Amino acid sequence: MVDVIMVGTVALDTVRTPFGLAEETLGGSAVYASVAASLFASVGLVGVVGKDFPQKHVDFLRAKGVDMAGLETLDGETFRWKGYYEYDMNQAHTQDTQLNVLSRFDPVLPPEYRDCKYVFLANTDPEIQMRVYEQINKPKLVMMDTMNFWIESKKEALSRMIEKVDVMLTNDAEARQFFDTPSLVKAGKAFLEMGPKAVIIKKGEHGALMFTEDQCFSAPAYPLEKLTDPTGAGDSFAGGFIGWLARTDDISPRNMRKAVIFGSTIASYNAEAFSLDKLKTISRDDVFNRYMRFQDIASF
Amino acid sequence: MVDVIMVGTVALDTVRTPFGLAEETLGGSAVYASVAASLFASVGLVGVVGKDFPQKHVDFLRAKGVDMAGLETLDGETFRWKGYYEYDMNQAHTQDTQLNVLSRFDPVLPPEYRDCKYVFLANTDPEIQMRVYEQINKPKLVMMDTMNFWIESKKEALSRMIEKVDVMLTNDAEARQFFDTPSLVKAGKAFLEMGPKAVIIKKGEHGALMFTEDQCFSAPAYPLEKLTDPTGAGDSFAGGFIGWLARTDDISPRNMRKAVIFGSTIASYNAEAFSLDKLKTISRDDVFNRYMRFQDIASF
Repeated sequence: MVDVIMVGTVALDTVRTPFGLAEETLGGSAVYASVAASLFASVGLVGVVGKDFPQKHVDFLRAKGVDMAGLETLDGETFRWKGYYEYDMNQAHTQDTQLNVLSRFDPVLPPEYRDCKYVFLANTDPEIQMRVYEQINKPKLVMMDTMNFWIESKKEALSRMIEKVDVMLTNDAEARQFFDTPSLVKAGKAFLEMGPKAVIIKKGEHGALMFTEDQCFSAPAYPLEKLTDPTGAGDSFAGGFIGWLARTDDISPRNMRKAVIFGSTIASYNAEAFSLDKLKTISRDDVFNRYMRFQDIASF
Repeated sequence: MVDVIMVGTVALDTVRTPFGLAEETLGGSAVYASVAASLFASVGLVGVVGKDFPQKHVDFLRAKGVDMAGLETLDGETFRWKGYYEYDMNQAHTQDTQLNVLSRFDPVLPPEYRDCKYVFLANTDPEIQMRVYEQINKPKLVMMDTMNFWIESKKEALSRMIEKVDVMLTNDAEARQFFDTPSLVKAGKAFLEMGPKAVIIKKGEHGALMFTEDQCFSAPAYPLEKLTDPTGAGDSFAGGFIGWLARTDDISPRNMRKAVIFGSTIASYNAEAFSLDKLKTISRDDVFNRYMRFQDIASF
């Protein structure tokens, strides 16, 4: 049985940043999260692709130890996202989204995934997240992500889903939007009141905030010299975070702080190159080394 | 003799935020920096006001222990700034700037200030900063701030000034603009190459980065529940930072990290209310208590 399952998108991305253009590269929330988590734990990916999805990407994920039993292939084309970043790379600008097979995605978990203890429901339609959630038996920790699109179009279904999960993951703009407040602290506490035991607000290159019952953790940014493409940083963060928790099987607030830093560490690597080009090359030792450098950079 | 001198603006501000409106309130870079630093050290303020400047503000600054020998009063009106903030309060929007007496500001340091060891040249015309700098004898640490306006209009004079100072203080947008790079790490290192021994890049509510010869310090944000008015946060940061250095008379990188956190702590108080309304009420004990809470919030 795998330690963690990642439910989300598998995509072919076309991304332009001030540093270049990457066309039809491997992407998607489930892919970034799976590869990040595979540095710490055994991972199963749940997603859908079209018949056009290159076999080399499947081979790459398998080579990373990602179990692909939950990858469905449907007639039609793979989900595609096209976007660009300007100099302030905290903001992605979407040019085109082609849902393709994703619009028919109705995930059925492989039976051996249903007892998995750690589950990440990456950003997708909250009704689909709920259908996956209902297939899981007694997980130890379920984490979800979302985006502005669902806050605007399906806030009720999204709220029902938030009530169920253990960890709510969001970015700063989404947190402000959900509760119509400029204060991330107020938004964090309001999410906690909905049910989650922990709320993590990602702030792009500026670090993250985590709120638990009686604690707040302000994680600093890892200062990155070579920022090339932030696509997938949030999902790499999520994968590193839940991968560390699954590896240690310890969901105490203290260990969750470490998990936030591991998530940030892996996300920082991810942003150094397009697509998964950097994530592909790093080892667990690299992650531990940068974690230690992170401690040095943040201590006072 | 005072421990620190603060050279900058003394203003009457009119500020609107999502939480209300403050009209013709006390403001200005030298004022915020002085009141912040007065929590740690004896401070002399160098600035200019018009004949309309309310005596109560002078009385308030004196009551805080700020030496006013360097405050000049000229015929005419006091500098005024009018601006507003939207929900994302990291960005100030200027509606109106009336330089008034500031356009005739040509600071002459009181003789007893010329041997002061710690000097903050707050944001103003870099040629004025240079004229002040030339009046100081062998200071231990000179810090400067600037803004986009001077980067655009007087980059050469600004560069000559940067070459002289020990600590360059800037915000993230200005650092990117100065070197035309999205990378704050690259910008920080490029400033270091110009001469300063330390470069601090303020990131508003997201914390700060400090670069010294062989170290980088990433200071986390202090998560603020009650964010009312960020005006003066950067100058309160600067005042707290240099005030702590002056108090301890220790400019080692290790102590500068503490100074960054003390600066952030005082800035976090400042943003809780309009003008100096909150800064007025806090004690050194309050600052130490929040500093300790900051350590707790940031540890991993």
